[in-house]
Amino acid sequence: MGGSTPDESEATGATGTVYLVGSGPGDPDLLTVKARRLLEEADVVLHDKLPGPEILGSIPEGKREDVGKRAGGDRTSQEYTNDRLVELAREGKSVVRLKGGDPFVFGRGGEEAEHLAANEIPFEVVPGVTSAVGGPAVAGIPVTHRDHASSVTFVTGHEDPTKEESAVDWAALAATGGTLVVLMGVGKLPDYTAALRAAGMDAATPVALVERATWPDQRVATGTLETIVEVRDREDISPPAITVVGEVAATRETLAEFMRNGTSDGPAQEGDDQ
Amino acid sequence: MGGSTPDESEATGATGTVYLVGSGPGDPDLLTVKARRLLEEADVVLHDKLPGPEILGSIPEGKREDVGKRAGGDRTSQEYTNDRLVELAREGKSVVRLKGGDPFVFGRGGEEAEHLAANEIPFEVVPGVTSAVGGPAVAGIPVTHRDHASSVTFVTGHEDPTKEESAVDWAALAATGGTLVVLMGVGKLPDYTAALRAAGMDAATPVALVERATWPDQRVATGTLETIVEVRDREDISPPAITVVGEVAATRETLAEFMRNGTSDGPAQEGDDQ
Repeated sequence: MGGSTPDESEATGATGTVYLVGSGPGDPDLLTVKARRLLEEADVVLHDKLPGPEILGSIPEGKREDVGKRAGGDRTSQEYTNDRLVELAREGKSVVRLKGGDPFVFGRGGEEAEHLAANEIPFEVVPGVTSAVGGPAVAGIPVTHRDHASSVTFVTGHEDPTKEESAVDWAALAATGGTLVVLMGVGKLPDYTAALRAAGMDAATPVALVERATWPDQRVATGTLETIVEVRDREDISPPAITVVGEVAATRETLAEFMRNGTSDGPAQEGDDQ
Repeated sequence: MGGSTPDESEATGATGTVYLVGSGPGDPDLLTVKARRLLEEADVVLHDKLPGPEILGSIPEGKREDVGKRAGGDRTSQEYTNDRLVELAREGKSVVRLKGGDPFVFGRGGEEAEHLAANEIPFEVVPGVTSAVGGPAVAGIPVTHRDHASSVTFVTGHEDPTKEESAVDWAALAATGGTLVVLMGVGKLPDYTAALRAAGMDAATPVALVERATWPDQRVATGTLETIVEVRDREDISPPAITVVGEVAATRETLAEFMRNGTSDGPAQEGDDQ
């Protein structure tokens, strides 16, 4: 097209596709077949730390771009990532945006997809094993159970800090009677366990913390709504970790002896409490 | 061990391992790397229809056992499956129990794991892409979104028929303000949409139905809490399908044009409404 500026001529070249890909919780074996293939074929992989050391280590360094730790500047990491995805696609690159777990479960994948559509960039969504289900599972915790969990709710422990007031109604969540899985909820554990107790949830309700689920150094700690903050502190549980609140969290005790996930002795035992 | 009966001597042989494996929503590309490998290596694969025609078709017929359609008899299919898993493992077989989606999201995987542990059978859980997230995703629907869904709840539309009263508190679910994903909820759609409206949920709340998500004949139909039953009937949406209730269900309209999941024209368009 005549008279185009350099920017415009870039834009009129063959636009690449962006793949919004879930990595699963971190074990490379829990990548989907499609994710594994796209990581091999992509020109560039944009990622943060959540996919974990094993998966990130399997990607050639020359095509990795870490967009998770941009310090300073007047733009958020999310704005930078959005723009970078568009820029790379307009250069004709095949781009994987790799996200821990599933891209549409608290991964801001929805916002990235909207940004791509608004900029007329073709994209594909490749779901992954969400850490909210897979993390508890490898620790011996089924998030639903016919006998004691007719529903499961995923929520984040730290919300968008730009929101004026908490959008999470912990009393309503307590009233569902189902399992609650809190992602990114290590720091705010005292706040929401208190909120759930204030809403009438039994202090003896089992709670489990799964730290770095499926990573080589996975740890699990268990307690109750009353004791879990103390357990967290004693075991020094740190992010990333998943909190499971509900009767299902106690299932681990029944299952661990014969479960062969992780080590041959079952799930990681370090840090276990009761 | 002396004097063992034939049954006991079977039991003292090398016991096989049972793998409780999620198939993902149905696209073979969304199997995990581990699931793909286990399907190739297993001696026997116990399954029902939910993994879908493509994945089931990729398993050699000689090692498939369909445990999903046992008609008649005085034992439930679940009891039969539980016992069959133990029996095969005691014969020294490597057994895959393949489940649609994830084994621990309404898959009765928890019960099967408990049964295996009670019978001292070693087992491993292999999480999969849950249809509750992956199904909506491939239709352009992120189940969470920073702007309008701080939580997501999964629930089943048809509950355990042996329960005396509904364990699902639809009013409490409505009060969470988050996205609701109803699995196996085509038949009871009129009941729970009415319950949600009675609980004060806006009649204009977007609702999407994703039929046979990621299967070759996937269809999507959209409407509102008020119109979706009529849409279901007009489009003849049938099980298996996923229902998404919440503002995120409208995201599809924004994303579909540039989304390349499924056909080159984006997600399946047949059956779409509005």
